[in-house]
Amino acid sequence: MEVSYPACSPSEGGGGGSDEPTIRLLFDLLIPVPGASCATPTTPNEEMNGAGNLMDFLDEPFPDVGTYEDFHTIDWLREKSRDTDRHRKITSKSKESMWELIKSLLDAWSGWVVMLLIGLLSGTLAGVIDLAVDWMTDLKEGVCLSAFWYSHEQCCWTSNETTFDDRDKCPQWQTWAELMTGHAEGGGAYVLNYFLYVLWALLFSFLAVSLVRVFAPYACGSGIPEIKTILSGFIIRGYLGKWTLLIKTVTLVLAVSSGLSLGKEGPLVHVACCCGNLFCSLFSKYSKNEGKRREVLSAAAAAGVSVAFGAPIGGVLFSLEEVSYYFPLKTLWRSFFAALVAAFTLRAINPFGNSRLVLFYVEYHTPWYMAELVPFILLGVFGGLWGTLFIRANIAWCRRRKTTQLGKYPVLEVIAVTAITAVLAFPNPYTRRSTSELISELFNDCGALESSQLCDYVNNPNMSRPVDDIPDRPAGPGVYNALWQLALALVFKIVITIFTFGMKIPSGLFIPSMAVGAIAGRIVGIAVEQMAYHHHDWIIFKNWCRPGADCVTPGLYAMVGAAACLGGVTRMTVSLVVIMFELTGGLEYIVPLMAAAVTSKWVADAFGKEGIYESHIQLNGYPYLDVRDEFTHRTLATDVMRPRRNDPPLAVLTQDSTTVEDAEALIKDTDYSGFPVVVSRESERLIGFVQRRDLTLAIKTARQKQDGVVSSSMVYFTEDAQQLPASDPQPLKLRRILNLSPFTVTDHTPMETVVDIFRKLGLRQCLVTRSGRLLGIITKKDVLRHMAQMMNQDPESIMFN
Amino acid sequence: MEVSYPACSPSEGGGGGSDEPTIRLLFDLLIPVPGASCATPTTPNEEMNGAGNLMDFLDEPFPDVGTYEDFHTIDWLREKSRDTDRHRKITSKSKESMWELIKSLLDAWSGWVVMLLIGLLSGTLAGVIDLAVDWMTDLKEGVCLSAFWYSHEQCCWTSNETTFDDRDKCPQWQTWAELMTGHAEGGGAYVLNYFLYVLWALLFSFLAVSLVRVFAPYACGSGIPEIKTILSGFIIRGYLGKWTLLIKTVTLVLAVSSGLSLGKEGPLVHVACCCGNLFCSLFSKYSKNEGKRREVLSAAAAAGVSVAFGAPIGGVLFSLEEVSYYFPLKTLWRSFFAALVAAFTLRAINPFGNSRLVLFYVEYHTPWYMAELVPFILLGVFGGLWGTLFIRANIAWCRRRKTTQLGKYPVLEVIAVTAITAVLAFPNPYTRRSTSELISELFNDCGALESSQLCDYVNNPNMSRPVDDIPDRPAGPGVYNALWQLALALVFKIVITIFTFGMKIPSGLFIPSMAVGAIAGRIVGIAVEQMAYHHHDWIIFKNWCRPGADCVTPGLYAMVGAAACLGGVTRMTVSLVVIMFELTGGLEYIVPLMAAAVTSKWVADAFGKEGIYESHIQLNGYPYLDVRDEFTHRTLATDVMRPRRNDPPLAVLTQDSTTVEDAEALIKDTDYSGFPVVVSRESERLIGFVQRRDLTLAIKTARQKQDGVVSSSMVYFTEDAQQLPASDPQPLKLRRILNLSPFTVTDHTPMETVVDIFRKLGLRQCLVTRSGRLLGIITKKDVLRHMAQMMNQDPESIMFN
Repeated sequence: MEVSYPACSPSEGGGGGSDEPTIRLLFDLLIPVPGASCATPTTPNEEMNGAGNLMDFLDEPFPDVGTYEDFHTIDWLREKSRDTDRHRKITSKSKESMWELIKSLLDAWSGWVVMLLIGLLSGTLAGVIDLAVDWMTDLKEGVCLSAFWYSHEQCCWTSNETTFDDRDKCPQWQTWAELMTGHAEGGGAYVLNYFLYVLWALLFSFLAVSLVRVFAPYACGSGIPEIKTILSGFIIRGYLGKWTLLIKTVTLVLAVSSGLSLGKEGPLVHVACCCGNLFCSLFSKYSKNEGKRREVLSAAAAAGVSVAFGAPIGGVLFSLEEVSYYFPLKTLWRSFFAALVAAFTLRAINPFGNSRLVLFYVEYHTPWYMAELVPFILLGVFGGLWGTLFIRANIAWCRRRKTTQLGKYPVLEVIAVTAITAVLAFPNPYTRRSTSELISELFNDCGALESSQLCDYVNNPNMSRPVDDIPDRPAGPGVYNALWQLALALVFKIVITIFTFGMKIPSGLFIPSMAVGAIAGRIVGIAVEQMAYHHHDWIIFKNWCRPGADCVTPGLYAMVGAAACLGGVTRMTVSLVVIMFELTGGLEYIVPLMAAAVTSKWVADAFGKEGIYESHIQLNGYPYLDVRDEFTHRTLATDVMRPRRNDPPLAVLTQDSTTVEDAEALIKDTDYSGFPVVVSRESERLIGFVQRRDLTLAIKTARQKQDGVVSSSMVYFTEDAQQLPASDPQPLKLRRILNLSPFTVTDHTPMETVVDIFRKLGLRQCLVTRSGRLLGIITKKDVLRHMAQMMNQDPESIMFN
Repeated sequence: MEVSYPACSPSEGGGGGSDEPTIRLLFDLLIPVPGASCATPTTPNEEMNGAGNLMDFLDEPFPDVGTYEDFHTIDWLREKSRDTDRHRKITSKSKESMWELIKSLLDAWSGWVVMLLIGLLSGTLAGVIDLAVDWMTDLKEGVCLSAFWYSHEQCCWTSNETTFDDRDKCPQWQTWAELMTGHAEGGGAYVLNYFLYVLWALLFSFLAVSLVRVFAPYACGSGIPEIKTILSGFIIRGYLGKWTLLIKTVTLVLAVSSGLSLGKEGPLVHVACCCGNLFCSLFSKYSKNEGKRREVLSAAAAAGVSVAFGAPIGGVLFSLEEVSYYFPLKTLWRSFFAALVAAFTLRAINPFGNSRLVLFYVEYHTPWYMAELVPFILLGVFGGLWGTLFIRANIAWCRRRKTTQLGKYPVLEVIAVTAITAVLAFPNPYTRRSTSELISELFNDCGALESSQLCDYVNNPNMSRPVDDIPDRPAGPGVYNALWQLALALVFKIVITIFTFGMKIPSGLFIPSMAVGAIAGRIVGIAVEQMAYHHHDWIIFKNWCRPGADCVTPGLYAMVGAAACLGGVTRMTVSLVVIMFELTGGLEYIVPLMAAAVTSKWVADAFGKEGIYESHIQLNGYPYLDVRDEFTHRTLATDVMRPRRNDPPLAVLTQDSTTVEDAEALIKDTDYSGFPVVVSRESERLIGFVQRRDLTLAIKTARQKQDGVVSSSMVYFTEDAQQLPASDPQPLKLRRILNLSPFTVTDHTPMETVVDIFRKLGLRQCLVTRSGRLLGIITKKDVLRHMAQMMNQDPESIMFN
């Protein structure tokens, strides 16, 4: 399994991936910055200078000892250890003076401060994004004459029209055709509006893809696969940098406004994580410890979902269930705090003017009936099938993009997809508007004031039947018309989303998935409603239609369908249900949502265990050890460890018989990230493990600074160097970079235990011994490779977990 | 740290702790069953016959190999391994025939079936308990003439009275005095009612304590400390047995109805866990694997809280945050399912007739103001102080009960406390009724129809001031009267709860804590309200009082106070806020609740890190390794391992030079739960670890069944026994009971890492080596002892985590 660059990094090598805080000049926008690949490490002052060893230092530490290279995995145990050391130092110092005590208190509170800042900033950004998207989406259709920065709705708020329908057509708001030609209706106006709609869409998407390509290639995609990988302990420098934050925020607005089939929810999680990373740099507690930093990022992810869906509890559960790797209870509490602060900040901004956090908040009042579980479960099946179809098709397309010429023209691809989307979307009123508005309309119940086509029911007082007291709800022509348009919209969304997700612009997947489900759900809902109305004497429909109330809530079906499709694609469970629960008014609707979510997950799992994020992680070859994969094979550590039977022996150092030259040769000849140190080659008894990076730095520093250290100097890892003859060159003592507590297992240890240990302790490598003798080494990549092998060999055996 | 019997086991040795399903005869009720202590192991067929070794078996396994003794800790890694073995076997078999395939599918679904059953049963039991408590609480005051099994409210439902006040006094419901003497009012009636109230209370509590003592001593207390311990991997046989379930349900009703200051919420968690354990026995997947069983119990705990508070999400988070130890994502999802099923079952029973799951569900409509955070935070401080006071006083009293004569008279203690409670409670209307009703009234807003004293505001139309449009809400005499009574009730509840919690009856702590907080909160709320009314021209109160709405919601203060006190006592955080959120209508009130919960936790933590449950766990000396305690000391594994410097060397077996006699002598002379096996005493190279229990059984079985095994037989742990002269006795080959992958760390490993490993992997012991040579052993108890030592030595260093 090879690690490649993140999903949407520029494969042609262009694009500036570094996250330097320099402000680029304007003409940079047009010319791709050459040379700077996304793997460029950041400047050294952004790296950590912490202690790399668990033991006390006898000498001063070298700079950079204990840091990690880009695209490497961190050692969770070591990070934890280093934090405890730091904490211990502060605590013991705090008794010395008042100032130190205050410093230690500040340190203790810094976690909460970071959470507060993350909540405030991500709430604010979400609000700004919402407002900007609202305005720019409407800009594609027209402009507000009283103030051009008003969206359609804001523009008509102050209008005096009484009905909703009239208010939509308030005179202050003019379509482009109206403004240019003076005619609001007619063929010419339609064509002009159509043309300008496509033009604006192309402009927005071109801007978005150009900004991403030139300034921050990491800003593309949803970001959740990479955040999952980062949280599991991988280093991708610049992925959560300031530059990415800025560009992602701007391009997200452009991408959503262009009308492409994508959402802002996933990228908002990325934006929140960038905020988290930004505020980490304020406190050395977090900036210098990759483990602690990941605690903050977990909380930031919760804040991101909290503002994306207005669901703070759902956000915390999403972070816990979906993205986090190491989630201690302390993080639970802090995530909750960050999620709440973010939600309240967004509410204070009130972007939709309804004091709700999301457009599609809804409250239902009609109960549901047991028999309705059948359509709900059918929607679950649909969601599962859609999830499977989407994942397979999207992965196949992304693989094609990676491997063929297609990947070399990201701008052209975005332009083409935008053009197709805009051309096909404009004629259908359900695809012309923004996807969030569509979902909102589909979720909504038909109230008395609703002017939507979907609420065009025949309300003829002459038809009232006082005998059985059923409210008259035969569908009117508008409903039938809407059904056709919805069906077309469904097909369109299904196809176009497959090609949209993974392009080089910020693109979330939640909203398009929910839209597909909501359309399907609403269609099913209307069908069930009409059946219940026309056959209200059938036994199953007997008591459904009561006076003054609807027989069935088609909006609920839309919500259930949305949950099912989202579940099929992401395989979220509890967090999905809780998010949906926070979107609706009451506990009653949890059962339908849950039935659909469970069915959808089971159906989708039958075709393949992995959700879209895991599939993208695998496509990109990130070293991600999924907590949910259970390893159930009978292999032992000895089957996985290296060296294999016919390989050359393990590259080891001895504690007192290696020369500097030998060590340098070992570093040069191999590319292992560390070397075990043994008593002697004969006994092979393990005494410790030394990191390649630390060893290289130590030798380099010693050669430069320590007189007398030459190629033939002995390297000592023992506590006391032997007395050497005076003629011998000065020895190099390296015990302080030796990890004296390397993790070991015996060769008979079952791999399932080894996998468990790797997962729970977050190891990078583990040494294999038999009765104290070193036999080999297992790295995280060996584990992942072995798991992938076993899976392919016997894919069925993991089906019934 | 010594492990004693569970909290409320009979210290005088009487009482039947066994969980046999035999039905006792009536006279057993009066005579304590002698001899049967609570530590009696259950019958062997309830134990597990699973495989004890990770390696394949060459011979047939001995019976009982791989089981655990009572009051011992389980080995999580081994349990997990055994489950994977089982799973693997079923999967490979499933390809053989249709029947095996069906069996494997059933096995895969058994987890969901268990969850469904747990949800159904715990929901039903909660409903039955609610109904029974309702009826029996009212029975203390009077009886329904139309049907004696109706509670006061149910009795008057059918009544024709129009006002609430009148309906409360409907003619069908008669107080005892009314029934006996015909006079409802007057001194005589009061005395008679008083006398009968005390009499009923004494009868109920006597019945409760007798049932607990005679049938199921484990049924006492809240059960949460023990469940936490069990979930962390400890074995307490019978604690979750059928007998405990039955008796706890019955006595819980009696205890709550007796009017003692206790709640049903904690014990409901115990009841739900008993249900979980009961249904585990239906499936060998769960009954034969202590690890899997604990996953089910975690979910059952969630179901318990779900029905206790009508808060399914809060229940899952409670299980995650407060009681569970090992909580994989699969359990999260299943817990949620169980919690929802339980909630819907309870709703179907509808015990309170209001389609709400709890009595104190409430919806507020008035917003709160920033300045109100000051009283909210003050309530948080109060809650923290109350928590500290309560924990210290209660633990001191429980310690006294354990160590003095007091503990020998549990029945007398209960009778005495009941008598005092009943005598003091009757005169005050706020303590006379059940605590849940009190909380419900305190939480409630004063609506138009409210007849409570607390809503006695002066509504004089002549006093209306149209100038500033403030609704007139000066407190009437009823409110002032209520304030005095509430203040007295507060003092009474504070004192009596300290003595009640820990007695030998089922007693929860949530309700009394919430009551204390709710009373304090309501008093503060009314004070703030009156201040805002009388000084509505002060700047801070400027916009508080709006026309047609209350200035302040005193009910919200009660709820905030309740959250603060509950948080101070239990140190719950997220789950507490979510439970409270599910009790109220909207997201708005999360901020006040959270402010109070955070303050209360911080204040309480400043005086001591442990909540009431951890304190009781420590008081009883259970081997519980708290996930939240961070270990920050610089000690190394070598400082903790045994043998200590001057101790005799470690008791080890050698792989091929021990005789049966030697092994038996080792078993007899030591009481270690296992022995390391080394290559030879000289090299001390570790090859494996053998459990004491397995070794004893193996030798016993071999002596009985295998011819030629005598005292001088050699014991071999090697793969191939050496060729022995024919004259030598037949050797005993024990490789199959040898764990070839014992967990090892080096002597230089920092203890913080060791603690982390113990916690995350759920180890029982860990061997310490240096360059492959065995040095010593660290057991879970060594770790706990060391942590306790370090804590006492330097209690300050853990304050700022």
